[in-house]
Amino acid sequence: MPIPANDPNRKSWLEVPQDSDFPIQNIPFGVFITKDDVVTIGTRIGNHAVDLGALQQLNYFEGIELTDDMFMQDTLNDFISDGKKTWRLVRNRIAEIFDADNGELRDNKDHRAVVVCSMDEVEMQLPVQIGDYTDFYSSKEHATNVGMMFRDPENALLPNWLHIPVGYHGRSSSIVPSGIPVHRPMGQTVPAGERTPVFGPSRMIDFELETAFITTDVNIMGENMPVHEAEDYIFGMVLMNDWSARDIQKWEYVPLGPFLAKNFATSISPWIVTLDALEPFRTKSPKQTPTPLPYLQQKGKHAFDINLEVSIEPEGVEPTVVSTSNFKYMYWTMSQQLAHHTSNGCRVNSGDMMGSGTISGPTPDSFGSMLELTWSGKNPIKMKDGSERKFINDNDTVIIKGWCKNAETRIGFGEVSSKLLPPFGRK
Amino acid sequence: MPIPANDPNRKSWLEVPQDSDFPIQNIPFGVFITKDDVVTIGTRIGNHAVDLGALQQLNYFEGIELTDDMFMQDTLNDFISDGKKTWRLVRNRIAEIFDADNGELRDNKDHRAVVVCSMDEVEMQLPVQIGDYTDFYSSKEHATNVGMMFRDPENALLPNWLHIPVGYHGRSSSIVPSGIPVHRPMGQTVPAGERTPVFGPSRMIDFELETAFITTDVNIMGENMPVHEAEDYIFGMVLMNDWSARDIQKWEYVPLGPFLAKNFATSISPWIVTLDALEPFRTKSPKQTPTPLPYLQQKGKHAFDINLEVSIEPEGVEPTVVSTSNFKYMYWTMSQQLAHHTSNGCRVNSGDMMGSGTISGPTPDSFGSMLELTWSGKNPIKMKDGSERKFINDNDTVIIKGWCKNAETRIGFGEVSSKLLPPFGRK
Repeated sequence: MPIPANDPNRKSWLEVPQDSDFPIQNIPFGVFITKDDVVTIGTRIGNHAVDLGALQQLNYFEGIELTDDMFMQDTLNDFISDGKKTWRLVRNRIAEIFDADNGELRDNKDHRAVVVCSMDEVEMQLPVQIGDYTDFYSSKEHATNVGMMFRDPENALLPNWLHIPVGYHGRSSSIVPSGIPVHRPMGQTVPAGERTPVFGPSRMIDFELETAFITTDVNIMGENMPVHEAEDYIFGMVLMNDWSARDIQKWEYVPLGPFLAKNFATSISPWIVTLDALEPFRTKSPKQTPTPLPYLQQKGKHAFDINLEVSIEPEGVEPTVVSTSNFKYMYWTMSQQLAHHTSNGCRVNSGDMMGSGTISGPTPDSFGSMLELTWSGKNPIKMKDGSERKFINDNDTVIIKGWCKNAETRIGFGEVSSKLLPPFGRK
Repeated sequence: MPIPANDPNRKSWLEVPQDSDFPIQNIPFGVFITKDDVVTIGTRIGNHAVDLGALQQLNYFEGIELTDDMFMQDTLNDFISDGKKTWRLVRNRIAEIFDADNGELRDNKDHRAVVVCSMDEVEMQLPVQIGDYTDFYSSKEHATNVGMMFRDPENALLPNWLHIPVGYHGRSSSIVPSGIPVHRPMGQTVPAGERTPVFGPSRMIDFELETAFITTDVNIMGENMPVHEAEDYIFGMVLMNDWSARDIQKWEYVPLGPFLAKNFATSISPWIVTLDALEPFRTKSPKQTPTPLPYLQQKGKHAFDINLEVSIEPEGVEPTVVSTSNFKYMYWTMSQQLAHHTSNGCRVNSGDMMGSGTISGPTPDSFGSMLELTWSGKNPIKMKDGSERKFINDNDTVIIKGWCKNAETRIGFGEVSSKLLPPFGRK
């Protein structure tokens, strides 16, 4: 069954710049503060912000079963709880409303004035209240690279890696939307050649190029979600920068995993792009050898061809692209991750977020972290002003972009951009 | 400055059985559903449930600055956000209201009828909405025991352990109150002598004897909480059973820590006992060698003398006590844990929960898990019906109790009790 909102021939009466991430075929969901200081759920077409709360109040969603204030909320959690059928009805309706041939809103100046404004006039917020945040580790190239550097080059991939979509719990309270700056963390590290730790600013701040998916209510406690149904419970995806302090991580991570090296900040892009919008970009994922256990086996295409790019922008200097990767390189799919996560009955709720793990591709220019790109600082990267980076410097901005593109359509995520500030309270 | 509610000489006009965990000196906070199906915040004196929402509506908290519906809520988060000064004012006022010499409520039959009922008539809920849940690993004996069994007996304690209160993130969505049964999880395990995993029910379900503390809003992102102020941001404590599947854990935990081995269920006792109530039971914690880094150094008594006891109750059989431990054995204190957790600027909010880690004492009968008590199944424990336990069997109930006691007062937590059921959907 085709999804009407994906019709590549549809044009909008709202202007959409060429190569925009947000044509009328995208219709992502987010939360923003309007110029009148009202928090609302919205979508984006071109560089226009669309206030879905206002659209609902003006009855444009009549006929779709929604609570009265569904879009007049400060998170998408309730809407996401309504399930895939409702998401699709709403997205299709929005496509209709903004279709170039539909005069209903286009020709109603008063309505247009309260529904549509420029993206410059709104302030994007976190799109969901994230109850629990899990981060996976599903790029074989990344796991191999890190294993070579942190552990044993001969046995880089640990024995469980090819059987389990390895993951761990992260910290929800430190997840911030694009644009919020992040402070360099303090922490315990062991100086080279020493055996005891010192406390001070981390000297090895890194990004991790990731995507994340947001779920609806998946199960009750005890129940599992079969892998072949799991995708229906994924609302959509965002870009994610899993900020990491490598020197803190190296010292603290045994035996219970990364903790303070990660939980000082995680940045995400503010628009959730639905799996429906990504549908035309399905592709095959890498062959899995050995064959996973039955509860993880799936047929068909469950990867998505999403181009990814990371830039570093030193203060006052043009950004330098440091990595060009693709989400399709991931060894484990999102549906396998979700099936594994619930295989023990772990409850997953609406608004929960699951990170992909660093997305490293097969070539050195597609690695998803400075740790890998510079091989732990051995091969620094040159910026446009001639300065070099082993890791991220104070006042550098890290920008991750992501987009899908075929002959007909481009569906993008926009970006997650965040500046690294000096430690809190220091200049 | 003495805390009036702690006066050991105070008696209540409500009957309190001898050796009750809940004399008028306790005044814990919790959330329950009344027999009229109303959710309210409450406290407990003896075997009486006290409806704080009703007390507030009847103006018994006049003079204390509280929002109108502070206690007519389904979580304590907002009350905890109000901070220590308010917690103390409210607890002191409750002590006054129920003082044997105060006739205000005692002699008002109509008021009493809506405020007080039997504990049998209410259903306890989770006391807080837990935004983020962290579990520490702060018992030296436990870390040593596990290190000997899972890793290297010669180097059981990892090099970071004496420098860092090691911790990791857990799953909030799987935290349930006492009384909610838990299903044996399915998962990947590697049979003895094999190298590849199979999927099936875990065969090594364990409890972990823990306590946990609940915080108020501690900091903004980037900011740290100094160790000497940290205790003021701890609202109170509960008992916790950190259910663990040892066979799943052993296979999955490298390199990112325990995940599905833990996140199927975590059970807590429903009453939060305030740090104020525990004040008379402060004691010294074990000497720390080497001296921790300055941000973790503290003077004075920051441990608490809390007796702990774990029993296993097979179906239809009297419970057998399998462990007798004490919270005072913990190497790292709660204030050190909170100072460490925020040392990198990680944000901690009202209602966040931090587990102690398994509380194992110095002697084998004080170990806090079956893994240690039976030394990974080598020394089974006999139940009262003659059956043996290496780990927890289906339909066993695990009961953790905790209490403080001196010559004058007993302050207890009640219990966290939960039954292990067969895997979901099986009998």
